[in-house]
Amino acid sequence: MNLDFLFYPKSVAVIGASNKEGKIGNAIMKNLVNYGFKGKIYPINVKEEQVLGLKAYKSILDVPENVDVAVIAVPSKFVPDIIDQCGQKGVKGAVVISAGFKEAGKADLEEELVKRARKWGIRVVGPNCLGITNIEVTFDVTFNPPERQARPEFGGIAFMSQSGAFGAAILDWAARHEVGMSKFISLGNMADLDESDFMEYLKDDPKTKVITAYLEGVKDGRKFLKAANAATRKKPVIVLKSGRTEAGAKAAASHTGSLAGSYAIYEAAFEQTGVLNAKSMRQLFNYAKVLAMQKPANGDRVAIVTNGGGAGVMMSDGIIEKGMKMAELSEETKQKFAKAIEEGVLPHHMSYRNPIDIIGDAPSTRYELAMRYALEDENVDVLVVIALFQSPALDEGIVEKLAKMQEYGKPIVFVAPGGRYPEEMARRIEKVGIPVFETVEDGVEAVYALVKYGKYLKEL
Amino acid sequence: MNLDFLFYPKSVAVIGASNKEGKIGNAIMKNLVNYGFKGKIYPINVKEEQVLGLKAYKSILDVPENVDVAVIAVPSKFVPDIIDQCGQKGVKGAVVISAGFKEAGKADLEEELVKRARKWGIRVVGPNCLGITNIEVTFDVTFNPPERQARPEFGGIAFMSQSGAFGAAILDWAARHEVGMSKFISLGNMADLDESDFMEYLKDDPKTKVITAYLEGVKDGRKFLKAANAATRKKPVIVLKSGRTEAGAKAAASHTGSLAGSYAIYEAAFEQTGVLNAKSMRQLFNYAKVLAMQKPANGDRVAIVTNGGGAGVMMSDGIIEKGMKMAELSEETKQKFAKAIEEGVLPHHMSYRNPIDIIGDAPSTRYELAMRYALEDENVDVLVVIALFQSPALDEGIVEKLAKMQEYGKPIVFVAPGGRYPEEMARRIEKVGIPVFETVEDGVEAVYALVKYGKYLKEL
Repeated sequence: MNLDFLFYPKSVAVIGASNKEGKIGNAIMKNLVNYGFKGKIYPINVKEEQVLGLKAYKSILDVPENVDVAVIAVPSKFVPDIIDQCGQKGVKGAVVISAGFKEAGKADLEEELVKRARKWGIRVVGPNCLGITNIEVTFDVTFNPPERQARPEFGGIAFMSQSGAFGAAILDWAARHEVGMSKFISLGNMADLDESDFMEYLKDDPKTKVITAYLEGVKDGRKFLKAANAATRKKPVIVLKSGRTEAGAKAAASHTGSLAGSYAIYEAAFEQTGVLNAKSMRQLFNYAKVLAMQKPANGDRVAIVTNGGGAGVMMSDGIIEKGMKMAELSEETKQKFAKAIEEGVLPHHMSYRNPIDIIGDAPSTRYELAMRYALEDENVDVLVVIALFQSPALDEGIVEKLAKMQEYGKPIVFVAPGGRYPEEMARRIEKVGIPVFETVEDGVEAVYALVKYGKYLKEL
Repeated sequence: MNLDFLFYPKSVAVIGASNKEGKIGNAIMKNLVNYGFKGKIYPINVKEEQVLGLKAYKSILDVPENVDVAVIAVPSKFVPDIIDQCGQKGVKGAVVISAGFKEAGKADLEEELVKRARKWGIRVVGPNCLGITNIEVTFDVTFNPPERQARPEFGGIAFMSQSGAFGAAILDWAARHEVGMSKFISLGNMADLDESDFMEYLKDDPKTKVITAYLEGVKDGRKFLKAANAATRKKPVIVLKSGRTEAGAKAAASHTGSLAGSYAIYEAAFEQTGVLNAKSMRQLFNYAKVLAMQKPANGDRVAIVTNGGGAGVMMSDGIIEKGMKMAELSEETKQKFAKAIEEGVLPHHMSYRNPIDIIGDAPSTRYELAMRYALEDENVDVLVVIALFQSPALDEGIVEKLAKMQEYGKPIVFVAPGGRYPEEMARRIEKVGIPVFETVEDGVEAVYALVKYGKYLKEL
């Protein structure tokens, strides 16, 4: 399914565009204009001559040129007729922001909307949604202002959300943590296009490396299984499914009308189709970030290099508790370490059992040697590097040394707990391609995602 | 046990003080001087006339006035004799930074150190430690520089750590997240003072509201049980115990020499003594932050007020998955909501089942009403307020409205996911006494800590 017409339009009409502060049609116009959409923008408003300085039209039918996408933010009762006008105009996609459909007890009106859209071959996002954003081309028809909801930089993670508000929070969070995103879709009521359609599209989207979703329930189980099965063969799919408990399911029913069904069925479906099942927002992001930056692991044997013993102990616990293995270093590797210690290249009081504890006064050269020995070991599938940057001995040479380690072709996860300085270093390390995590537990989740998805691919 | 002499000294001698960049004795001196210690500082160095512009002495015995605390950063073999000198001088506490004792296979030297200290009645922190910090009076004898390890602001959380490096990361992290701390202790080898001694001291420390610790193993099981039992009756104690798995325990043995023992025994001991058992750094902080700011809950029935349906669903899942209950709102409360909706004070399409979903366009006045109704309900023990600040409808009046809610005397947890704007608002909300968490899952953990510790206190 190709939905490029929705995400890369040449021209957009905003039906319900407004000059009035506080109106959704005003907020959408501002985002379209200010975020930097390069195509043509046609505000549609029955009363205004101009909206935000752009010539306004009374109807979409008055627009002199082609319109690819219509964004609709007018009271729900007018939407079906607007869809007819869009059809006459040759619009290909409609993003219906308006609420007041199925979620408000008006299933009839929603059916009518779909009927009209089908007649004209228009594909619909929503209704009752926050809109969509294609960060790559700064095309944004969502309505939260940038001072409240920052836009992330362009990157490999696509996100779709059955909750518009949570979707907005995720974008804001990604921007804050400098996690790059490709496309955002607020799914709304999914009257026409649903999570499976978007998954199918994103699977073939060259700009999306990882597909993520917040879902309360899927619209069509069979369709989802088919779409997920096809998608996970090409790229990782991560779903945060809420409504896992009875109380949660009740809340979901009153929120999106999702009949959540038994969570056990979802778990089995995710497992079967290779979908990574995230249980929290941070887990979703840990999984997504690592899989966008590193290739899946070839096995579950993890080596740890650390300048802090305690963090090494915690990481060992986490690896085992998540069902993975601490790599047993080969005799050859042990001999390499022993020799380097004997020669005074590595310090006597370090430990080269796994975790490899290169101790608190380790400079980046010591990291380099330990990382090489670990990566050269055929018993090691994933390398975790922990750096407590609070120690002044650790110099910034670590950045280029990590960059070089990628030649071994094994996945690397970097953990740097602390405050501002580790955060600055994290951004620099991520620029050379290694994902950095703020806590040991985040690092454990990242490794888990690499191992779990790697195992799925191997078993295919 | 009163250890005020260690944390509130009038005078400190730094044995091994140095002018040489990169030396630990130089780093400690800089922190003492630059962080703003108000007492007298006596650098001790056999060769120098001055250190950092302060008059230096060849021996602590040459210092003309009393010395309360000696910080020792000289090669380990000299330490026992230095302790004797400290004893002659009348020093009460020694912080031994020097490594090269039991952890380096020199158990004899460590025993000798303790023997000498006992003779003179000197209490010893360490050896092989990062030092101690009393943030309240800006007394800091740790050695990481501030540009690498920021110091948190003064607040109610004390932290002791068997890992110096991890302790440093925690301080840096707390500073970054504006979590206030009282005292920090790097436990080192615990040759004399151990985790139980510090727990006993911190229990009676009026500046410490919550005691937290990173431990790989306790030194004396019975002593720990006794100290923990006494401490938890007065204030919350939170322990992050690592070495939970066999691999972790092995790593711990090579790190601190802790014989971790069976984790099940620790779990049982924590449960019995009311110690909150944290499994990750973030969990430790979530527990600590909420308990430093809110009183424990009277029961496990949780009400949620949210402007985002999805976040409400996720929070409901989390509450149930952690073994707590979603409060069943009373008939009276439901009638209050129904009436307010009928009168147009609250919107028709909101939900007042729990979670109370006041929907995306909620201003702070709507929050106020919903929070009041929830807090007035006798079926509610804890209130969770979720705000997705990405919605421009939510005004900053939320801060003072939250402040007022404290009159009900029930604990409140605030969750605000997203980026910079929610972060700014979080700091303002925390100033009025309500703890704010970045994700739903953090909020769940916070509520759990309030409920768990409240239950323990009730059952005493």
